Amino acid sequence: MTQKVPGLTPDHASLIVHGADKPGIVAAVTALITRQQGNIVALAQYTDDPVGGAFFQRVVFHRQDLSVALPEIRADLAKTLGEFQLEWTLRDMSIPSRMAVLASTSDHCLLDLLWRHRRGELPVSVPMVISNHTNTADDVRSFGIPFFHIPSEGPDKSAAEAEILKLLVGNVDFVVLARYMQILSSDFLKEVGVPVINIHHSFLPAFIGAAPYRKAKERGVKLIGATSHYVTQDLDEGPIIEQDTVRVNHADSAVELARRGADVERQVLSRAVLWHSQDRVIRNGNQTIVF
Amino acid sequence: MTQKVPGLTPDHASLIVHGADKPGIVAAVTALITRQQGNIVALAQYTDDPVGGAFFQRVVFHRQDLSVALPEIRADLAKTLGEFQLEWTLRDMSIPSRMAVLASTSDHCLLDLLWRHRRGELPVSVPMVISNHTNTADDVRSFGIPFFHIPSEGPDKSAAEAEILKLLVGNVDFVVLARYMQILSSDFLKEVGVPVINIHHSFLPAFIGAAPYRKAKERGVKLIGATSHYVTQDLDEGPIIEQDTVRVNHADSAVELARRGADVERQVLSRAVLWHSQDRVIRNGNQTIVF
Amino acid sequence: MTQKVPGLTPDHASLIVHGADKPGIVAAVTALITRQQGNIVALAQYTDDPVGGAFFQRVVFHRQDLSVALPEIRADLAKTLGEFQLEWTLRDMSIPSRMAVLASTSDHCLLDLLWRHRRGELPVSVPMVISNHTNTADDVRSFGIPFFHIPSEGPDKSAAEAEILKLLVGNVDFVVLARYMQILSSDFLKEVGVPVINIHHSFLPAFIGAAPYRKAKERGVKLIGATSHYVTQDLDEGPIIEQDTVRVNHADSAVELARRGADVERQVLSRAVLWHSQDRVIRNGNQTIVF
Amino acid sequence: MTQKVPGLTPDHASLIVHGADKPGIVAAVTALITRQQGNIVALAQYTDDPVGGAFFQRVVFHRQDLSVALPEIRADLAKTLGEFQLEWTLRDMSIPSRMAVLASTSDHCLLDLLWRHRRGELPVSVPMVISNHTNTADDVRSFGIPFFHIPSEGPDKSAAEAEILKLLVGNVDFVVLARYMQILSSDFLKEVGVPVINIHHSFLPAFIGAAPYRKAKERGVKLIGATSHYVTQDLDEGPIIEQDTVRVNHADSAVELARRGADVERQVLSRAVLWHSQDRVIRNGNQTIVF
Repeated sequence: MTQKVPGLTPDHASLIVHGADKPGIVAAVTALITRQQGNIVALAQYTDDPVGGAFFQRVVFHRQDLSVALPEIRADLAKTLGEFQLEWTLRDMSIPSRMAVLASTSDHCLLDLLWRHRRGELPVSVPMVISNHTNTADDVRSFGIPFFHIPSEGPDKSAAEAEILKLLVGNVDFVVLARYMQILSSDFLKEVGVPVINIHHSFLPAFIGAAPYRKAKERGVKLIGATSHYVTQDLDEGPIIEQDTVRVNHADSAVELARRGADVERQVLSRAVLWHSQDRVIRNGNQTIVF
Repeated sequence: MTQKVPGLTPDHASLIVHGADKPGIVAAVTALITRQQGNIVALAQYTDDPVGGAFFQRVVFHRQDLSVALPEIRADLAKTLGEFQLEWTLRDMSIPSRMAVLASTSDHCLLDLLWRHRRGELPVSVPMVISNHTNTADDVRSFGIPFFHIPSEGPDKSAAEAEILKLLVGNVDFVVLARYMQILSSDFLKEVGVPVINIHHSFLPAFIGAAPYRKAKERGVKLIGATSHYVTQDLDEGPIIEQDTVRVNHADSAVELARRGADVERQVLSRAVLWHSQDRVIRNGNQTIVF
Repeated sequence: MTQKVPGLTPDHASLIVHGADKPGIVAAVTALITRQQGNIVALAQYTDDPVGGAFFQRVVFHRQDLSVALPEIRADLAKTLGEFQLEWTLRDMSIPSRMAVLASTSDHCLLDLLWRHRRGELPVSVPMVISNHTNTADDVRSFGIPFFHIPSEGPDKSAAEAEILKLLVGNVDFVVLARYMQILSSDFLKEVGVPVINIHHSFLPAFIGAAPYRKAKERGVKLIGATSHYVTQDLDEGPIIEQDTVRVNHADSAVELARRGADVERQVLSRAVLWHSQDRVIRNGNQTIVF
Repeated sequence: MTQKVPGLTPDHASLIVHGADKPGIVAAVTALITRQQGNIVALAQYTDDPVGGAFFQRVVFHRQDLSVALPEIRADLAKTLGEFQLEWTLRDMSIPSRMAVLASTSDHCLLDLLWRHRRGELPVSVPMVISNHTNTADDVRSFGIPFFHIPSEGPDKSAAEAEILKLLVGNVDFVVLARYMQILSSDFLKEVGVPVINIHHSFLPAFIGAAPYRKAKERGVKLIGATSHYVTQDLDEGPIIEQDTVRVNHADSAVELARRGADVERQVLSRAVLWHSQDRVIRNGNQTIVF
């Protein structure tokens, strides 16, 4: 068995549809899949307001010889959904999404992603890891993955960002910041042109910014958490994909909180990456639908 | 505001469809809803095997003047789904399901359900509580709910069961065993004719039978749990609806385990009852689909 | 069996000791208990910094005929711990703490506390419930507990606060705000002279202030939570006793978030009240030690 | 900073005391530590029955120049605790416990332990990994840890066990079975002479034996779990150290359950190993005290 779950699935497509809700959308979409000889494997639908709300749908369907039929299915979708003025994305699920990982010195999120990828848990390829430090180079390359070192010293990050963009653009479908400790500029986010997923080292909106575990210790919290979100120009304010918390107590030092936090961070980030790469996450303004 | 969430919803219907999977079912069902002037509010679908598996679908749709249109919708469903040889259930969600509760001396599950019902959290009516003890009578009646005492002493339970059946049959849509400490006979289950939901005071399949908290203490477990399931003739073996666990430690006595267990039991049972009364739970052999 | 766990325990005392750490404190305290013919049942100790930190200890000990021996034990403690310049509290655990509950219209936290009290889960007596609304009067009195209605309309709360103080002072050992929707003045907190425990309807420090569930919905969070803390003059900023979270998703409305939040609130508050009434919680600046 | 938390702590000792409860034990132990110039950093105590029960205590204390004073402290303990007929263990916490890991083809538990060890999260050294397969050899050696391959084919395991014993005996303080898929004989357990920690791939006592995830899928459970326990001659029945569960649903295949199970397994095992190596776990018959 070369294929692993929940990895790549030949002859399966994911279709995401969203836009203003109108009666008959689900019927139109599913009728289209039927006439295109597809068989629906999973379907989820959500409307954020029964009256005049926004409509979101994810369908996974099986279609024999999908790759041959794709152009015709796309043409049918363009015509059918155009009448409803809906946006849609159709993706062949036998093709892995290309994921780049940006990291700094911390290795817990980075290695967890690479290890899950090697186990076949993530339907992605990993064309590159980029870090502004060198300490993880050997580990990354031991997974057979290219490692690029792009330092980002000094106040002007534009040269480093330009170099990163040169590596990314055209080569990746999404970017994961696995505890990458540099703030990306608005220009970078515009030019990279693909979704960027971050792991925030606290339960947003608590303890935004630096030293969250020290702040959590000072506040005497009984839980610490982590948040994975899409990066937008509003730092730490992008749409949340996944969150989790873990119980701590008064005897835990700030260092111990950070250690437990690292465990939550890698779990939360790996779930967010899995769901994103399975086309389960749809952005809706500053929120997400996770099907 | 007379209507509470997630209570009754006027002009909304839930449609459950299941049977052997074939291409085109979702399209046929959603096309039917569209031509019957319904607007889909929520849709979930599941197939237990992409090839030759069983198909399950839950749709909630809004339809102006639903009560007038119901006969025509039913006729359309019978015709359309008959062609696919599918089973279906259509329910008007403005009408509460009628829930009977059977209890013994323990009050934690019973009172939690009645209190949630009074708050408008459960889309049910509660025509009666039946107990083989009298200690909860005042509490039940303070909620404005009829309390019937049917003792079940001695080895022969058939007289008591007959009396309970006389109260239930025709008057209720489902029965909840809220720590009812009597084993119901196969005959009773056949004659009652509606689903019976139980809360098992442990994390099945662990610690089946009597004194689960003493057994858990002896085994030195670090978690205890509860399981809510449909009652079948195989005691404690029916399809599981919901489960949860809670952390305990060596210092907790068996009595303390029971106290914490009671907290998990009422949470698990109330979730199972909510989901059942929202038509979210479909039985599939000895398993459940919970949409 | 008239006594229930974890209720009152005859001939048991809890001793809390705290102050600047010095070598030999634990030895001195435990030697004292031994010479006073006590047998240690539970002991927990914590030092917030091994070098020059603060010392905290909780001991529960059994002593035959405790009530007779208490004066002598107190004298011994005053002498022994005075040499170490430590603060201490000794409490006879056969005597329930007297708990007042302040509430408004919401009943979920209030009724859960009263119900747990009736089950024997809380080692407290409840001499009174005070509310600025009347809707819970019948429920409270059905538990055999006095209900006092003190409205708090208009901008000047001083008359209402004075009336509440007249009821509380001298009659209660601690006060629980069970979703009491009035802000207590600094003067009130000074004059009441006993700990006041609040349940904050969110996971502090997130969503402080009004309408937390609407804010949580707008932010698109995937978890909601609750925090129980001691009330200080810094609103919502007092020492945290307990916190918990529960998973939600995009399909949950703000009303549904509030419903799930209510479940977490009553669990978190009941745990905080139990631990406080078992003398397990020690305040350490703006933090707590929970043994 | 070369030292990491919760790693090795110079000049700190852990003292475990257990035996029949008598008044004055805690006083005697803490007085001893004081006269030996130790300062208590953490103390936890438990008695399983206030009347005639067993007594368990863990103390961590700081003592300047501990290594020099150890013989005198041990002599004092032997004399003092001998009078109480108590068993005790004193360990210098600056010396790492030597941990061997036995593994088969699965890498998730093995690599998680090695990675945590490298991060300084575990106060252990890892002198060897032994596997009956070769697939993890490169990964293990990339951590700088010796890998020994000892195949165990055929029905007679005694030769393989003898070879493993030759490697282990005298060289390790405890053994971790990180999804080692061979049953160890009673003779092996006797001769190895150190604690053996196992991770059971389900929530004991559920789904004992082979194929737990397939069994869990067939039973339609809503949670899956993992259990870490000390290995005894009663397979899967040894004293439980730690357990946890994770939520699953009807749509998860047996393969997906195994993937989520792997996440719980490595978390549960790493907590059990951490607590064991911090001397927090005391065996009490078929149960454990975890301080």
